[in-house]
Amino acid sequence: MTRRPVEAHARRVADLVAPALERVPETVPLAAALGRLLLDPARAAGPMPPFRNSQMDGYAARAADLAGAPVVLPVDGVVPAAAGAPPALAPGRLQKVMTGAPLPDGADCVVPVERAEPADGGVRILDAPAAGAYVREAGSDADAGAVLVRSGVRLAPRHLAAAAAGGADRLVVARRPRVAVLATGAEVVPPGAPLAFGQVHDVNGTAIAALVAEHGGDPVLVTLTPDDPTEFAAALHEATAAADLVLTAGGVSQGDFEVVRQVLEPLGADVAEVAMQPGGPQGTAVVDGVPVLCFPGNPVSAQVSFTVFLRPLLRAAAGLDPIESRCLPLTVPVRRSPAGRRQWLRGVRTDGGVAPAGGPGSHLVAAMAAADVLIDVPEQTTGLDVGEVVAVLPL
Amino acid sequence: MTRRPVEAHARRVADLVAPALERVPETVPLAAALGRLLLDPARAAGPMPPFRNSQMDGYAARAADLAGAPVVLPVDGVVPAAAGAPPALAPGRLQKVMTGAPLPDGADCVVPVERAEPADGGVRILDAPAAGAYVREAGSDADAGAVLVRSGVRLAPRHLAAAAAGGADRLVVARRPRVAVLATGAEVVPPGAPLAFGQVHDVNGTAIAALVAEHGGDPVLVTLTPDDPTEFAAALHEATAAADLVLTAGGVSQGDFEVVRQVLEPLGADVAEVAMQPGGPQGTAVVDGVPVLCFPGNPVSAQVSFTVFLRPLLRAAAGLDPIESRCLPLTVPVRRSPAGRRQWLRGVRTDGGVAPAGGPGSHLVAAMAAADVLIDVPEQTTGLDVGEVVAVLPL
Repeated sequence: MTRRPVEAHARRVADLVAPALERVPETVPLAAALGRLLLDPARAAGPMPPFRNSQMDGYAARAADLAGAPVVLPVDGVVPAAAGAPPALAPGRLQKVMTGAPLPDGADCVVPVERAEPADGGVRILDAPAAGAYVREAGSDADAGAVLVRSGVRLAPRHLAAAAAGGADRLVVARRPRVAVLATGAEVVPPGAPLAFGQVHDVNGTAIAALVAEHGGDPVLVTLTPDDPTEFAAALHEATAAADLVLTAGGVSQGDFEVVRQVLEPLGADVAEVAMQPGGPQGTAVVDGVPVLCFPGNPVSAQVSFTVFLRPLLRAAAGLDPIESRCLPLTVPVRRSPAGRRQWLRGVRTDGGVAPAGGPGSHLVAAMAAADVLIDVPEQTTGLDVGEVVAVLPL
Repeated sequence: MTRRPVEAHARRVADLVAPALERVPETVPLAAALGRLLLDPARAAGPMPPFRNSQMDGYAARAADLAGAPVVLPVDGVVPAAAGAPPALAPGRLQKVMTGAPLPDGADCVVPVERAEPADGGVRILDAPAAGAYVREAGSDADAGAVLVRSGVRLAPRHLAAAAAGGADRLVVARRPRVAVLATGAEVVPPGAPLAFGQVHDVNGTAIAALVAEHGGDPVLVTLTPDDPTEFAAALHEATAAADLVLTAGGVSQGDFEVVRQVLEPLGADVAEVAMQPGGPQGTAVVDGVPVLCFPGNPVSAQVSFTVFLRPLLRAAAGLDPIESRCLPLTVPVRRSPAGRRQWLRGVRTDGGVAPAGGPGSHLVAAMAAADVLIDVPEQTTGLDVGEVVAVLPL
């Protein structure tokens, strides 16, 4: 059997899903924008701060009047925050101001309350401040129209803070790619359902939807269908109507009841054996104009397929940092690996490097839960000794 | 003024909020458990896999019958997946089996379809397989009752996969701490509202709720109240009824209109000046049995207060990795820092280290959006040269 190299299939997948992962703008309230990718820059609607104001609770003054401090000056009232424009400050006098309150015209500094004390005839100012002390000038944080958050930024709380201060209550972000998941298998029943002999619980619907959500997509629909072509076709068209991208699990290998092949091959699907393990049988198709990726049905194979082929694309679309492979020495040998297939062994990082975890079987779902990386054993490698350095891909 | 050291206030906050952050179990469907902290271990309801089955599409056989391969044997029907128990395999014969289908009694190996070909009188098996080849024994992934995911694990997709395979459709996770946010300020209007002179947009409601959500809490309520004690008290009791922890912003400093102090000090609040900048004025209280943390109202001060005092506690409660300080050399000097106050300068990591970003003013919300760390300038340090190593706390 001719097997397609992993890189070749990855290119095919990238080309196919690129249109589905194009960034579509969506306007959302600030609170819903956390963690999303900004598409339109957030700008200041006006100067920030919008008016000249006090940085402290204290006394607005003219610095020239305080040159000979300590000095006692009379106080002309209090400027609370939100009071509208106060009267101008008369020469030789003070106005009490609260933090954030507008500074009266004529004032050029603020003396904090801690540096003033009550005195006959007003308030005694203890030190001569510099002109501008504790004054926040209008626009000193940002000018009107300034870009507060660039487009392309994944929005953290501090970005939402700046956008709110700049006058925004909603932002234009990239819509999360809407992904539908179709799990197949006559023997598969929903999680928690009672099992008859020969049945197993569906894992792929749960696992793939969670992977989609974790890596920036929106799992809009998860359907479990038996190995019936009519039912699968109906579920498929429902999925293409709801989603930007459809993922299927199962039904693409060499058995007698391969529902995904049966339905998709007449629609022009490409089904290939990729030179990797787990995850050999892979398919791609376009149905109703929507790209469809077909993963194998063994739960470990499906998770590895997502991780190898789709995860990097989805994360890039969502503006999430790429998850890079790193090189680590093996602390336990890899005794056997099939020639001609790139193997993704489940592994656990240890103090000294990385060790394979559990066996290579693609049904070992519990063993995969205990792993934290995939060990990337190259296509022509058939065994590896302790100390040999391998590439590992964090899960 | 005597200022409380940062560590002393941090201990006070930790003691106060500990009851609010105790892990309360909550049962949620698998899909809602992603990223949550598991409290009850996920166990296998039965053996995984639940029955002995085939790893390949192929032929179930007795290895002893194939010792002389190539050999031609007759085929007694097909075992599809989900077919119930197949009849036992007669000696000297084969049954076709699909991946995941139950293996007939008597079979001890599977020959993949790729290693068989049609022949007169049945199927020619090309090689002699080992006993056990391509057979998945019941329980080979996990025994009935085995722990699939330990309690204390933050749930990733692969953990949900194992739980689903083990028969679960819901999991017991730690409820996210429910946090209410009360932003105060007579001059403060909601995001996006038109501004009269002297008004600013509320930043703290947006920023603190987003910080709560980002670091594992559930911001159940965000209220903006003017500086009116009656309105604030009403909002406060509404908050304590809805939340495990209440955060206030503003109204705790030395001005004439400090609504949080006015309402909380008669209820026994502790209000102190903490030896840090920004974020000097801090308060703690217990109202209706619910802990209340009072942050200052300047938006940068409030975000820094959350980051320094609450973020580590909230992340620990949610099972999120701690965000550790790291040491980096300054690439730009810190010209002045106030003696007697630990300063948290906003900074930007650069190739060669870290540089302060924007000024120290606690109104510089736009500058904070551009920062990615806080530079921790010790209490008695008044300036730092290029190349001096500072602790930086990632935002």
